[in-house]
Amino acid sequence: MESNSHPSCAPPVLAVDIGGTKILTALVSTNGDIIARDYASTPSQKSAEAVVQQVAEAAERVMGKTRGRVGQPSAVAAAVAGLIEIRNGVVTTSPNLPMFHDTPARSMLEERLGLKAFLLNDATAATWGEYRLGAGRGTKDLIFITVSTGIGGGIVMDGRLCQGTCGAAGEVGHMIVCDGGPECSCGNRGCLEALASGTAIAREAQEHVARGAETSISRLAGRRPITAEVVATAAKAGDAIAQQVISRAAYYLGIGLMNLVHIFNPDMIVIGGGVSQMGEMLLEPARSVVQDKAFRLPSGSVRIVPAKMGINAGIVGAALYAFESATNGMAQ
Amino acid sequence: MESNSHPSCAPPVLAVDIGGTKILTALVSTNGDIIARDYASTPSQKSAEAVVQQVAEAAERVMGKTRGRVGQPSAVAAAVAGLIEIRNGVVTTSPNLPMFHDTPARSMLEERLGLKAFLLNDATAATWGEYRLGAGRGTKDLIFITVSTGIGGGIVMDGRLCQGTCGAAGEVGHMIVCDGGPECSCGNRGCLEALASGTAIAREAQEHVARGAETSISRLAGRRPITAEVVATAAKAGDAIAQQVISRAAYYLGIGLMNLVHIFNPDMIVIGGGVSQMGEMLLEPARSVVQDKAFRLPSGSVRIVPAKMGINAGIVGAALYAFESATNGMAQ
Repeated sequence: MESNSHPSCAPPVLAVDIGGTKILTALVSTNGDIIARDYASTPSQKSAEAVVQQVAEAAERVMGKTRGRVGQPSAVAAAVAGLIEIRNGVVTTSPNLPMFHDTPARSMLEERLGLKAFLLNDATAATWGEYRLGAGRGTKDLIFITVSTGIGGGIVMDGRLCQGTCGAAGEVGHMIVCDGGPECSCGNRGCLEALASGTAIAREAQEHVARGAETSISRLAGRRPITAEVVATAAKAGDAIAQQVISRAAYYLGIGLMNLVHIFNPDMIVIGGGVSQMGEMLLEPARSVVQDKAFRLPSGSVRIVPAKMGINAGIVGAALYAFESATNGMAQ
Repeated sequence: MESNSHPSCAPPVLAVDIGGTKILTALVSTNGDIIARDYASTPSQKSAEAVVQQVAEAAERVMGKTRGRVGQPSAVAAAVAGLIEIRNGVVTTSPNLPMFHDTPARSMLEERLGLKAFLLNDATAATWGEYRLGAGRGTKDLIFITVSTGIGGGIVMDGRLCQGTCGAAGEVGHMIVCDGGPECSCGNRGCLEALASGTAIAREAQEHVARGAETSISRLAGRRPITAEVVATAAKAGDAIAQQVISRAAYYLGIGLMNLVHIFNPDMIVIGGGVSQMGEMLLEPARSVVQDKAFRLPSGSVRIVPAKMGINAGIVGAALYAFESATNGMAQ
């Protein structure tokens, strides 16, 4: 994805995707090309200032990589794994970034970097990236779901990014699909995230192992904890318990998708995130649930496809969002 | 709501709301005033032509009522209780209007009435009515839910009516909230409609009666079937079983609302439909579920309020939609 072509004359955007474990920083051109990038670990101290400092250092490294070939960035666009209040640029809460709690991240970035800053949720940013340059190119009504440790998402309707009244729209993982079901990280029971995320797959597999089920899962995990990746590997090798665990997650993912098909009647649902990398093993049974259970009209007009942009979706989406917000005067 | 003021100079729209039991026809001015109206029963024959004929006769009666005070309508705007494919103006299916099945209702209305026709789902039309002139005035991101025999809804995001890729968006009643729960009219189990609609309330009460529970419900119903209205009357009079039935429906309505709050982060949810007329008895516990279970940011910014326009929401919304579609060249 890193572009060697002559960069656009317009100044790039410094895009940053701040996740629970790593910070991905990149210079992105107006057409979405990644000019240079940098990976760093998210500081473990419980300080938002340390994260902003890390971003500033990454920005210097990224600028250094361009060796003066591009001008100063016009803005910084930050995608953050948390609930964002877009009007005032505050990260209200973040399960994976506990140092952010009612944190004015936008103004902190603006002060530290001396650039206008745009702030949005990481799944929202990835939604915009997949819509503009990924799997969703050419669609109009798109739902993006990221299935990894948790489940997040984003909404495009009529070609417009829908962030809701505060910027917190798209929390599809915390849609209850099985009231009274397993407990979720949010404290409720039966959320989609509690049934179909990587955490849910690992927990379910762990429960089978603890009950003494005959399975290769714990052998494959070795001394490491059981993860969704281990379960997927076991399932691919024919392990019946692992296959059952994946099937269950896929079934509930399908229920979640069916709900979204009924609510939005989208032309595309794009599934990204680490867990989605198990591919058709997860997607095919989920699609079947939609075909079996959803109304004919909306189920006949939706394509359910894997994401295309991988970890670049967030930085590219955030950068394009910043360019377009600056151009259209969209509210931030 | 019927206006005595001098009608606008611009020609009105003939708006019609075609439901399972009645057809409401009205002349609506460009500012949403109802100039004249007519009620008729939906023909019981299984013919879409008979329904269109009924609309044509109602149109003549409505025009007659204006005694030449207004000009010919510029268009007909039809709100239909069914799944609508808006691009080609076809009613694909309708549980309450079985005569409509892949029926080209838009062209049938255009041919019979000699007017350009606009076709949309009845809950979608009511959504637009409540947004433009009802409870939702001044909001930007609004979800409308109609709770009656079934549960339907509609979506406004960033001030735009979101109908999805075919026109089938807003089917919030067929969001599964309790997988494996009671059977729904759609064939699935645990849909919101199967847990919180008038039908669900009546069924639940009937089950209590059949089990011999001590309740005034069957006495109140007399020889008529148990309805949600009867259950509400019993609950208001202090009947514990009736109160329990309403509480259960309100709880699940709250779960559905919480899901929508997480998905859309709306600034308002408007609740209409016959069952919603039991008012705070239903809304207050549903709101509590949202307050208890939803994330603080989106739950703190949503108002959950009763609809204001009653049965006029659909005709007014359809008419305004037609005016605005004609003005903006919105796709139909």
